[in-house]
Amino acid sequence: MNIHTLDKYAKSLIKEAAERIRFSFSSELIIDSKSEANDLVTNIDKETEQFFIQHIKENFPDHRIFGEEGFGDDIQDLNGYVWLLDPIDGTMNFIHQKKNFAISLGIYKDGVGLLGYIYNVMEDDLLSAALDEGAFFNDVRVPKLVPSKIEQSVIGVNASWVVPNKYLEHDGMIKLMQTVRGTRSYGSAAIEISYVVMGKLDAYMSMRLSPWDIAGGMVIAKEVGAVVTNLSNESINLLEQNTFIIAKPILHKELLDNYICLK
Amino acid sequence: MNIHTLDKYAKSLIKEAAERIRFSFSSELIIDSKSEANDLVTNIDKETEQFFIQHIKENFPDHRIFGEEGFGDDIQDLNGYVWLLDPIDGTMNFIHQKKNFAISLGIYKDGVGLLGYIYNVMEDDLLSAALDEGAFFNDVRVPKLVPSKIEQSVIGVNASWVVPNKYLEHDGMIKLMQTVRGTRSYGSAAIEISYVVMGKLDAYMSMRLSPWDIAGGMVIAKEVGAVVTNLSNESINLLEQNTFIIAKPILHKELLDNYICLK
Repeated sequence: MNIHTLDKYAKSLIKEAAERIRFSFSSELIIDSKSEANDLVTNIDKETEQFFIQHIKENFPDHRIFGEEGFGDDIQDLNGYVWLLDPIDGTMNFIHQKKNFAISLGIYKDGVGLLGYIYNVMEDDLLSAALDEGAFFNDVRVPKLVPSKIEQSVIGVNASWVVPNKYLEHDGMIKLMQTVRGTRSYGSAAIEISYVVMGKLDAYMSMRLSPWDIAGGMVIAKEVGAVVTNLSNESINLLEQNTFIIAKPILHKELLDNYICLK
Repeated sequence: MNIHTLDKYAKSLIKEAAERIRFSFSSELIIDSKSEANDLVTNIDKETEQFFIQHIKENFPDHRIFGEEGFGDDIQDLNGYVWLLDPIDGTMNFIHQKKNFAISLGIYKDGVGLLGYIYNVMEDDLLSAALDEGAFFNDVRVPKLVPSKIEQSVIGVNASWVVPNKYLEHDGMIKLMQTVRGTRSYGSAAIEISYVVMGKLDAYMSMRLSPWDIAGGMVIAKEVGAVVTNLSNESINLLEQNTFIIAKPILHKELLDNYICLK
């Protein structure tokens, strides 16, 4: 399997799926009054995943698909080629904002990330990477990340992890809020990962993400030198839900050593 | 003074200023290594305000300008025509992200908001309104807001107001986080206000905003039926810093009655 052929095919599939999603919005405006907006949105989610599966199976019958909507394969290992797909990452944004959501896709072979994609559907922005070939934003090379001091950092963290919760030691989060320059929350893991990769955020964390939320981003992150682990500083397990942090290298260590403490 | 003439002029000024800001980015890429990025950015902020002031004074010599950078007039009252201007709302985004910032402008006559503008510079999206004439997003009419239940609401609130702080009763904020569907934080008051106006967020709150951050947004908010007050449920004073909330009507009351409590 030539990786560049696979890359070209995956990109064309993503662009076509996005076109269908954008088109669904225009028909939703008509349908909206007849049915529940949430139902329709779920349909678009499902239809998009099925669109991917149908085309992947046709062209690569031995590839398996691990997708959010569950129409893909029953994945218990990462042997061979596996496509990890979230057809719409940021579903709440999709429903409430009709923007700020992404198609997230990672293509792995025997557990190694070969290709990664985060496509911001409404902005028509594609962040992508191939193993050892660098990351690209709309075909412009993304530079390697440079370190930043924690006091000058802007990090992606949702307010729900900053009130007392069952996952995190609250004192560390208070100290973190008092130390960093600022925080943001965009409601799509894929988009927040893309912001870290492009240096628009210095770190992003979450308490529970699924493999398809992060698989594409992890391939891209590696190419720019961003560090990805769970919040116990262990490698991500792409067969289950994980806690998650992506950050610039030194900042990653500092955040886990001094601020973010799992209970 | 014909309001439509003024509107047309203000829009052309905003678009030209934005063009200059976008152009500054391209030269910044050259200058970046020679000087501090923050200095340069400050220059763009200042230059943009001076650009507005120069043109407004030339064309409307009796109008006064109340701007963030302080090159305008010494404003102690809102008599006559006053332009309340933030040339770059979301400065931290401007520096860190080179996107997600806005030009925010409100034109008031004797304290009454006549015209309001929030222009997302990098997305080239203009939200605007004229008193009693409705709000428009890129010249498409923005519909009036419809109520939403708090459990289904997505609200704009920064994580820094959700850790214990000197402004807010912490218990109410914890309860709020546990009740709403989700929260977001974008780092630009003007953009967050624009999201509420367009129904992409159901509410947005902040502990301290300046008149120029919100004056434009307040004119627009009125046209779609969004409620704007400070967090003591009083009218905003456009001569000083305020706490701030904008929300859908019923939600506004519910948030202030049951969740957001100033110390």
